[in-house]
Amino acid sequence: MSSASPAEEIDEAKEREHFRAVVTAFKYYKLCSLDRIHKSEKIISILPQNHQRRLEKYKTYLAKFKKCLDMNNSVVHLIIKDVNTMFENVDHSVTDPSGTNGVESFGCNYNNCEIASQKQHKMQHDVEKVQSVLKNIVRDWSDMGAEERKQCYKPILDEMEERFSLDEYSDRSQIRVLVPGAGLGRLAWEVAARGYTCQGNEFSLFMLFASNFILNRCTEINKYTVHPWVHQYVNNITCEHQLISARFPDVCPSGNRPNHNFSMTAGDFLKVYTEADEWSCVATCFFIDCAPNVIEFIERIYTILQPGGYWINLGPLLYHYSDMPTENSIEPPYDILLEIIRDIGFDILKEQTGVKTKYAQNPNSMMQHEYDSVFFVCRKPYCM
Amino acid sequence: MSSASPAEEIDEAKEREHFRAVVTAFKYYKLCSLDRIHKSEKIISILPQNHQRRLEKYKTYLAKFKKCLDMNNSVVHLIIKDVNTMFENVDHSVTDPSGTNGVESFGCNYNNCEIASQKQHKMQHDVEKVQSVLKNIVRDWSDMGAEERKQCYKPILDEMEERFSLDEYSDRSQIRVLVPGAGLGRLAWEVAARGYTCQGNEFSLFMLFASNFILNRCTEINKYTVHPWVHQYVNNITCEHQLISARFPDVCPSGNRPNHNFSMTAGDFLKVYTEADEWSCVATCFFIDCAPNVIEFIERIYTILQPGGYWINLGPLLYHYSDMPTENSIEPPYDILLEIIRDIGFDILKEQTGVKTKYAQNPNSMMQHEYDSVFFVCRKPYCM
Repeated sequence: MSSASPAEEIDEAKEREHFRAVVTAFKYYKLCSLDRIHKSEKIISILPQNHQRRLEKYKTYLAKFKKCLDMNNSVVHLIIKDVNTMFENVDHSVTDPSGTNGVESFGCNYNNCEIASQKQHKMQHDVEKVQSVLKNIVRDWSDMGAEERKQCYKPILDEMEERFSLDEYSDRSQIRVLVPGAGLGRLAWEVAARGYTCQGNEFSLFMLFASNFILNRCTEINKYTVHPWVHQYVNNITCEHQLISARFPDVCPSGNRPNHNFSMTAGDFLKVYTEADEWSCVATCFFIDCAPNVIEFIERIYTILQPGGYWINLGPLLYHYSDMPTENSIEPPYDILLEIIRDIGFDILKEQTGVKTKYAQNPNSMMQHEYDSVFFVCRKPYCM
Repeated sequence: MSSASPAEEIDEAKEREHFRAVVTAFKYYKLCSLDRIHKSEKIISILPQNHQRRLEKYKTYLAKFKKCLDMNNSVVHLIIKDVNTMFENVDHSVTDPSGTNGVESFGCNYNNCEIASQKQHKMQHDVEKVQSVLKNIVRDWSDMGAEERKQCYKPILDEMEERFSLDEYSDRSQIRVLVPGAGLGRLAWEVAARGYTCQGNEFSLFMLFASNFILNRCTEINKYTVHPWVHQYVNNITCEHQLISARFPDVCPSGNRPNHNFSMTAGDFLKVYTEADEWSCVATCFFIDCAPNVIEFIERIYTILQPGGYWINLGPLLYHYSDMPTENSIEPPYDILLEIIRDIGFDILKEQTGVKTKYAQNPNSMMQHEYDSVFFVCRKPYCM
């Protein structure tokens, strides 16, 4: 049946394994998050009696956090409910070879403590990504995220409206916009909602699972609830802030969406998009620093844009692969990046530094992160 | 000669070992920091030719960063120059048992790759602390840090002036102020400069080595130069920002200081300060969340204050030991902390949230951290 080469088969097996690992992380979300609460309870239980007494009220909150985990877990389960068939080309609904269906014990066994500990560490890391998905739901699809979206998405959307004004382009569906690093899909959805044809592309399965749920299964406004900050144990003014809930989706993405002009793709931007002169506009938000080699991203954006097409970018230069021992990351600062963009052939039409932007920030936290992002608009010339 | 018990001897041996490890980290500062530049150069050298060409200018900056490391290394060497005799009770000027004097190779040897890699990891972690000392020098002792000091230290100093006004207390040297978590000593020095008798206490040898140099060896204003941001490779608008230098000290701490009323102690706050009713005032800045158990800190501050004495605090609740696997950290939020403070016996005279404060922030970075700190003033009552 299959004519795949051995190398392709290995790739496919690796992909299936990764898929299962991500599903498992969603399944373990509650158990791992609950472990953190149990740890706090245990620590308090071995304190001197008078310290325990002074933490009585705090202990009642730890109990409340467990209820928030239950709420979050309902959403987490909805997210992975139909992921096995979410991709048109692959069915992942195979039996879990461990046969444990996500209830395997992570306790240390006698024979191999070190491997068990490594496995637990990896699981915790993955569960933190699930926790971060919950925060991204708030950023992209809740009223609470409106301010962040205004900072990050509005400059891009305004620019698009300016570059492709209704006077000049009466049929906006002819304008093909690509949003790489689409995350939970709100920016791409907003672009499509304005009438442009828009495709979002995302690499992370954590994000793809959640965006699949929101974009395809959420048919009612504010039907679901998450407690996005329940995992933040430090820098709280009050435990009440840790309990705060957010409803989603603030709009009805599947109901309102003009399906014919909106799509999402899964996979590595550099592998998925190779066709030259295909897109009218590429919009990147908190994306270009996700490449080990940012030059490859810029070159590819140049290639896939139609002559006269626009690249609109907003975000910092965090360079996510910097200082990862196994990655060959390069980290050119903004001024050198601009020279590279020009050198590749773009005309830089607009550029601005110091654009205040937040990313999934807990508004009540005593620790606040803010990016002084850069915003720029480039054009691929009609002829070189 | 020694009448120490075996347990005390073990403690002393561990302390000596730690002392040597910290000295070694200072010695390896340049080598490890240089390694990071070499890594970038190597990554660029294996890129495609046209990418290498596009990074030519960036490569010239990597070369300039090396010169900054040399400048920093001169300061780093001055800092450890006389540390062997800095403590009155212990002479650490013993021969390094490895006999390598800080030029040992961290390359992987054939017999024990894993240990070599762990050792390298630990060294890198320690060298990052040296890099952070350089940033703390800017915070505490340079013109560039003036804004941060205004945010963090001024509210505390103003409060002290208000609580111990010159009308009531004409001889301020009778007022004994303790600053636990004194870091590089600027706040404690400022307190002493206002005439109060002040003692700073610090646990970290990294900080103690640097404060010893600044407080006891710096006799000339702005004599030395550091490049505090040269180790930040991401979120730069331009490489020029990575090159920025700061001169220090902005004041002459050893020359101007009224020596008789200012001192610094080394060691764990809970071990060093056990005497009841000793201090007129305890001032804590970015300190109380450095305890695994913050209640112990509050109880101890209460104990050591004279009846009628003040505790002035400013900082966030980052809880530095949170989620460290080996530590029993508790993380009560601010409102619960206030209840504990009252329960211990303090009268809360003043309290404020949302006090904007930064900590060793690179002003040009595209990523900005800001704390919404809490500020409060408590008093130990005259009678219970």
